[in-house]
Amino acid sequence: MLRTHTCGELRITDVGKKVTLCGWLQKSRDIGSIGFIDLRDRYGITQLAFDETKNPETFEKARIYGRECVLRATGVVDERSSKNPKMDTGDIEIRVEELEILNESKTPPFTIEENTDGGDELRMKYRYLDLRRESVRKKIELRHQVTKHTRTYLDAQSFIEIETPVLIKSTPEGARDFVVPSRLNEGEWYALPQSPQTFKQLLMVSGMDKYYQIVKCFRDEDLRADRQPEFTQIDCEMSFVEQDDILNMFEGLTKFVFKNIHGIELSDFPRMSYQEAMNTYGSDKPDTRFEMKFVYLDEVARGKGFGLFDSSESIIAINVKGGAEFTRKQLDELTDFVKQPQIGAGGLIYCRYNSDGTLKSSVDKFFSEENLRQWAQTCNSAPGDLILVLCGKKSSTQKQMNELRLKLGRQPGLIRSGEYKALWVVDFPLLEFDDESGRWHAMHHPFTSPKPEDISELRSSPGKVRANAYDLVINGVEVGGGSIRIHDKKVQKEMFSLLGFTDEQAQAQFGFLMDAFEYGAPPHGGIAFGLDRLCSLLGETDSIRDFIAFPKNNAGRDVMIDAPSPLSKEQLEELGLK
Amino acid sequence: MLRTHTCGELRITDVGKKVTLCGWLQKSRDIGSIGFIDLRDRYGITQLAFDETKNPETFEKARIYGRECVLRATGVVDERSSKNPKMDTGDIEIRVEELEILNESKTPPFTIEENTDGGDELRMKYRYLDLRRESVRKKIELRHQVTKHTRTYLDAQSFIEIETPVLIKSTPEGARDFVVPSRLNEGEWYALPQSPQTFKQLLMVSGMDKYYQIVKCFRDEDLRADRQPEFTQIDCEMSFVEQDDILNMFEGLTKFVFKNIHGIELSDFPRMSYQEAMNTYGSDKPDTRFEMKFVYLDEVARGKGFGLFDSSESIIAINVKGGAEFTRKQLDELTDFVKQPQIGAGGLIYCRYNSDGTLKSSVDKFFSEENLRQWAQTCNSAPGDLILVLCGKKSSTQKQMNELRLKLGRQPGLIRSGEYKALWVVDFPLLEFDDESGRWHAMHHPFTSPKPEDISELRSSPGKVRANAYDLVINGVEVGGGSIRIHDKKVQKEMFSLLGFTDEQAQAQFGFLMDAFEYGAPPHGGIAFGLDRLCSLLGETDSIRDFIAFPKNNAGRDVMIDAPSPLSKEQLEELGLK
Repeated sequence: MLRTHTCGELRITDVGKKVTLCGWLQKSRDIGSIGFIDLRDRYGITQLAFDETKNPETFEKARIYGRECVLRATGVVDERSSKNPKMDTGDIEIRVEELEILNESKTPPFTIEENTDGGDELRMKYRYLDLRRESVRKKIELRHQVTKHTRTYLDAQSFIEIETPVLIKSTPEGARDFVVPSRLNEGEWYALPQSPQTFKQLLMVSGMDKYYQIVKCFRDEDLRADRQPEFTQIDCEMSFVEQDDILNMFEGLTKFVFKNIHGIELSDFPRMSYQEAMNTYGSDKPDTRFEMKFVYLDEVARGKGFGLFDSSESIIAINVKGGAEFTRKQLDELTDFVKQPQIGAGGLIYCRYNSDGTLKSSVDKFFSEENLRQWAQTCNSAPGDLILVLCGKKSSTQKQMNELRLKLGRQPGLIRSGEYKALWVVDFPLLEFDDESGRWHAMHHPFTSPKPEDISELRSSPGKVRANAYDLVINGVEVGGGSIRIHDKKVQKEMFSLLGFTDEQAQAQFGFLMDAFEYGAPPHGGIAFGLDRLCSLLGETDSIRDFIAFPKNNAGRDVMIDAPSPLSKEQLEELGLK
Repeated sequence: MLRTHTCGELRITDVGKKVTLCGWLQKSRDIGSIGFIDLRDRYGITQLAFDETKNPETFEKARIYGRECVLRATGVVDERSSKNPKMDTGDIEIRVEELEILNESKTPPFTIEENTDGGDELRMKYRYLDLRRESVRKKIELRHQVTKHTRTYLDAQSFIEIETPVLIKSTPEGARDFVVPSRLNEGEWYALPQSPQTFKQLLMVSGMDKYYQIVKCFRDEDLRADRQPEFTQIDCEMSFVEQDDILNMFEGLTKFVFKNIHGIELSDFPRMSYQEAMNTYGSDKPDTRFEMKFVYLDEVARGKGFGLFDSSESIIAINVKGGAEFTRKQLDELTDFVKQPQIGAGGLIYCRYNSDGTLKSSVDKFFSEENLRQWAQTCNSAPGDLILVLCGKKSSTQKQMNELRLKLGRQPGLIRSGEYKALWVVDFPLLEFDDESGRWHAMHHPFTSPKPEDISELRSSPGKVRANAYDLVINGVEVGGGSIRIHDKKVQKEMFSLLGFTDEQAQAQFGFLMDAFEYGAPPHGGIAFGLDRLCSLLGETDSIRDFIAFPKNNAGRDVMIDAPSPLSKEQLEELGLK
């Protein structure tokens, strides 16, 4: 090695040792005849000291090198006269005897510091410089730790990591595939996997019993903010299981990762039905770090002559603790918020439960204080609280109220940093009706098993059939999801038929899987975690992009290497594409 | 879980326990009123016993189920009357009380046994059944163990695993890229990486210091036997290193893996220059499990009137211990072998050193016994040995003799199973001249650093410049290779120019890397191991395909899922391809 130590490891006990360090010049300064350089590497920063009187030549060199030059310094570890308790190496410095420049650096386009002056676009173009910043590097290190602990847990549970192919077959069901022309089979294409779903099921048929893989997946979507065309899944499957076995196993994994990353012992994850989640939070990924559960005012607020309520399918309230203090301006802002087109409420009704015990609403014309007191009782409100009400079609009102609840609950300062609330959402509907295509779609995917007790209703009332499907939700983020799979060819055929496949289409696309089901497929199920998302949750930032070494922008471009890019004519011709 | 235990874990100490097992019916038989089923899962086989007198209904069921049905059996663990010491569970059986069929199975297209009757094609089509065979499953498990130990070692050495992108930019230098049309950027394409080479170098520029990744790579080659279009690398890079640091670090990794997989302590790996490897073995990946080093007879065999020798650039011999016993037929076969067009020797000359001390050659007309004794001395031959000689152009003769040496050395029975001989081949030439294109090509890749002491000859005699490049060779197989990289923009530009790139081409394809070199690139180097190859070496079979769960055939097809396949018109139109 060109060094004897890293820039993060020397301590007071090393004083007197002759050492060689390599790293980047973080900053330099002189104090009279002593020059200082902060030398940085992945492991930390060490102060180099240059004495003009003892070694004028080296002192001179140290003055001229600019930020981000790569240096190699040899000298003796010395105790600092003014120690820096904030730095691990803050007790010592190196009295440099020899200084060598290993590589020069132009002035970087932005400062390599925690508060950088570089905009998003610039930092993406020079991602290799952005990664030098400690907070960015720590996110990449966190990701490594997450995968390491994941593997430790799953290995200990007898899972085998098995690689599944990346060049597979296109199955137009679901999201769009990225495709790859085959030169050796002209006119034919591979597709990149959206997930290894069918392969992991085949591995169960093959008796592998417990499979996992930390694997790249690909989806050619119109990119929304913070979606990446390639993303990473922790993909798992087990045989001879029922739903609870999977939930317990992967609740264990999640606890293990949180414990090892943050030292947090997560408490047992509650299990909540999809129906309850929708009724109580208006969302299948509720953020349970705060209350404000939905209260239905239908019984107490209808029939009082307020036409809007009387004609609404649902009247939903939430109780905001201490909200009676909200100013008129704050209430107007909340009203504007729910009336935005992307939320779409007609308006917001409020009722203040003043500290003096009086009640005052925006619909006093229709409701007596007596009536409002009933609202307050139903909402379990106390003096000082605020009741907010939305009404309309039940499903839309639930969604609108979810947005309002999240806005109020996630206000800065209200949520404690480092707080995690996890739950399992279970009993999802198997199918959802898509108005646009006029047919049923699989809510999870076509391989999800219906609940055995609901299977008889598959034809008669498909919308009522529940699936053996589950999502892991933490702090309102869907971290993972999975299901018990169909392992019976007849049920799988029935499912494809419900989804509008002809027998021929089903056979052409998934014949290999249905054929496999005829040779002794075991009952099986699994789950997939979004690794990027899990990391961003553990790293307490919203952006998954921060946890990807070389992410793409919202147009799917890598602005650093400038991809995608045109191909040469020769390449296209070789592929039989002109 | 649907089971209480696996089929591999019950022992004599479990006798009396009530258990439930799940698995596949391996085989069944009756002995009078007792029926037996061998139930198989990933963990082993357990014998189920059915007593007609006690439980006639279950006994009847057990008789009708065929091979590969999925069963669930509940009963009590009992000591066997006739134990099977070859099975881990051979002391016990389960007295079955309840038997449930979880899934039926058609008769498999080949037997799920060690010696299967299924041909290669059939087993590939039903790969999920082939994977049920113990020897096949064990190879997939071995692969998992290899990656697990690799990660353990590298994690302990402070390497960070970092994922690099799969959708990158096409760089036509080198092998052909697989490409992916971008729907969001019409007319532009991504490429799949042939290796994460430039990204790992950028990670070094970013200060990540020690990187690794176990990663899929892609090469659109005309497939030879046992080449896969997608393959997996253990990809590594380190900063502030010299060549020896890399060799030591990854020699350590290799020893760690062999120790943990096979319990073998490999001795230190010799380091041999490319030149020595070519001169001594005629190959840059010599199999050093056996001797038969090349001996040059130029001095002792030239000038004796044998025109063929006199007009040859090189006369190369190997000494075959005990080979004097070879029959005329065996010698004729060896002659035919070297004369095959793919080897291309003109003929084979031999000299028997008989046990009685006499010498007899196929060129006695030109060489006296005295002359032949000189050959024998030069070759260090003893009575009973055979000297085989080839001559011609030096480089071709070395290659021909390499083939002959491997054929003789690798004969069945001569090499001990489980013997591993590793070495580093170092000091490769930086460039090789390609007659077809009439220009220099990078022997390793264009980012490989020339040896500093040779750098002045880059322009004057490019062929003489040695690279800081190295290969890890075990048993004649190239398991890994790497180099110290160029970290200086000027040297990198010079290299591209030598390789025939214009400045514009170099900038368009690799500008991002050369730009990165201007912002403080550290000295760095790395290595990549072929995981598939390493596994096949550890698993002692030649075929890498056996160690891939779902391999492709020699035409790049996955015959199980039938990929690649045509796309729909809609898909092509969406991509702007008609």
